[in-house]
Amino acid sequence: MASPTPLLKDELDIVIPTIRNLDFLEMWRPFFQPYHLIIVQDGDPSKTIKVPDGFDYELYNRNDINRILGPKANCISFKDSACRCFGYMVSKKKYIYTIDDDCFVATDPTGKQINALEQHIKNLLCPSTPFFFNTLYEPYREGADFVRGYPFSLREGVPTAVSHGLWLNIPDYDAPTQLVKPLERNTRYVDAILTIPKGTLFPMCGMNLAFDRELIGPAMYFGLMGDGQPIGRYDDMWAGWCIKVICDHLGLGVKTGLPYIYHSKASNPFVNLRKEYKGIFWQEDIIPFFQNIVLSKEATTVQKCYIELAKEVKAKLSKIDPYFDKLADAMVTWIESWDELNPAKPAAANGKA
Amino acid sequence: MASPTPLLKDELDIVIPTIRNLDFLEMWRPFFQPYHLIIVQDGDPSKTIKVPDGFDYELYNRNDINRILGPKANCISFKDSACRCFGYMVSKKKYIYTIDDDCFVATDPTGKQINALEQHIKNLLCPSTPFFFNTLYEPYREGADFVRGYPFSLREGVPTAVSHGLWLNIPDYDAPTQLVKPLERNTRYVDAILTIPKGTLFPMCGMNLAFDRELIGPAMYFGLMGDGQPIGRYDDMWAGWCIKVICDHLGLGVKTGLPYIYHSKASNPFVNLRKEYKGIFWQEDIIPFFQNIVLSKEATTVQKCYIELAKEVKAKLSKIDPYFDKLADAMVTWIESWDELNPAKPAAANGKA
Repeated sequence: MASPTPLLKDELDIVIPTIRNLDFLEMWRPFFQPYHLIIVQDGDPSKTIKVPDGFDYELYNRNDINRILGPKANCISFKDSACRCFGYMVSKKKYIYTIDDDCFVATDPTGKQINALEQHIKNLLCPSTPFFFNTLYEPYREGADFVRGYPFSLREGVPTAVSHGLWLNIPDYDAPTQLVKPLERNTRYVDAILTIPKGTLFPMCGMNLAFDRELIGPAMYFGLMGDGQPIGRYDDMWAGWCIKVICDHLGLGVKTGLPYIYHSKASNPFVNLRKEYKGIFWQEDIIPFFQNIVLSKEATTVQKCYIELAKEVKAKLSKIDPYFDKLADAMVTWIESWDELNPAKPAAANGKA
Repeated sequence: MASPTPLLKDELDIVIPTIRNLDFLEMWRPFFQPYHLIIVQDGDPSKTIKVPDGFDYELYNRNDINRILGPKANCISFKDSACRCFGYMVSKKKYIYTIDDDCFVATDPTGKQINALEQHIKNLLCPSTPFFFNTLYEPYREGADFVRGYPFSLREGVPTAVSHGLWLNIPDYDAPTQLVKPLERNTRYVDAILTIPKGTLFPMCGMNLAFDRELIGPAMYFGLMGDGQPIGRYDDMWAGWCIKVICDHLGLGVKTGLPYIYHSKASNPFVNLRKEYKGIFWQEDIIPFFQNIVLSKEATTVQKCYIELAKEVKAKLSKIDPYFDKLADAMVTWIESWDELNPAKPAAANGKA
């Protein structure tokens, strides 16, 4: 890790849901301008998003999504930032970084601006260690290593598929916690990156997230949220449960920790409560479902894993609410659309690493 | 956690293997003097350890161990700091803190001396969350909480049985890593405490370790090391694998992270290599053994779990080396000795929490 981080300029797209705040791009300009942006507009397609000069971008609104996917467009959420996953699908790059428009550049404890994207790239290019816990955290960082007692056979690690970054200032709380602790701010800079162990689920937040499209892209579906759906704010959670189960099955790694962004403003807790309240009930059943799922030996690609997951969702979660029946169908549609837009390469790029 | 930490003066013993360095106790005096010390001398019983005035302590040498345990004393290692576990057995307190004599008081990034014991007490008095990962680390710390998507049914947590602290300066590396990186120092202060997830093993280091004797004490056996044994430096590792499997089975938590101590000197890597080299091979089989072990429903106390583990060790690890046959017997002797010195209380103090 002592060598300079490759910037991967031609291998990474930045996917952003609707940008409501133009300061956002100005603040990130020094870090984002070298990259291609994919902006997915979640609301009224007649509104125009003005992107400042100098950025290389493509913008998709609902009309574009409908035109490109035809009837399959119903798997992409409308009027919800979950629509961002359309950007993952149309990208042709190996890596994706996705960030919300209320996330600004954070500073580390020395006052230096944090290049979040660079840290995500470091995380993705460096192996993960899901099979045994290293008490000094990321063993591949400069000044760190595997500690005494760490099995040597596991020190090569496995490829990293996902890098989950954190947030200073406004923490990513649910509506009840927001309501109870309106003034709580996250000021603790934890200088750590760690692999989430195999078999352990985590709440994946889509605010500051990077992943390897070739390794895990088809599982990064943000579900059905927003307009016409009974639930919101579970788009990234859904994707997080799915990707973790699939990464565990395929022997891929998920990291969390650095980099931090500065999350500038809390969303409205009353609105959030309305979006979340069914999810708060449902997750009590959904999480045991994901904890107990066993994918078959035949599920050797992300797509095959995801189709198996969709079948299980239909069989076991539909009894919670008819919504899951619809979601299971949308999961299949998502994979069909993904494969149409991303025809298989000669090399088994999505196969087991 | 905003309220003052209870000091638990009458409920905690500090267990220290042979003290070779009297600066050690002087440096810790402000923090340790209120507590009772149990010193377990690992070498020649005719040598005298001079404890500075003002400390309340009891000291056991090999003659004492032989006298107290009789023929069962063969389960306690000789000429190895693994003998410290005798101190866990003779203690009558609820909590134990154990520390090596080359561990000094560390300072945090603001330059303040770290009261390691106080942080361990905080960790032990605060629940653990082994069933789901919280991305902002310890959810019960001031300024932190459970993040969006963390199931509400799991937010009560479970009792914490073990608090594993870390080390600044000399990291706890194995001999091969020491040889390869003789100059590496740990200077990264990671301001985090986290629960090691259920189902995940970790390399537990005995340098800076606290635990709840009532919850997990009988499993904190440091095995057979040192004089007459084919292996060393795996005493704490052995205990770590055993306690983790048992904590997972009984629904107890294991925390790692803060507090740091300052580890002043690296042990000799050549000597360490001689002690470790069999362990380096053996752990490749031992760790899968512990990862796959399933304790029975009848194993409802730590003792019952440990006896089951001993049977499994005899059945499955003896084929690696006859040492494991001897170790399995010693595990049973250890439990017999523990129960003799710690007769069951009327309340099920060692039962499932």
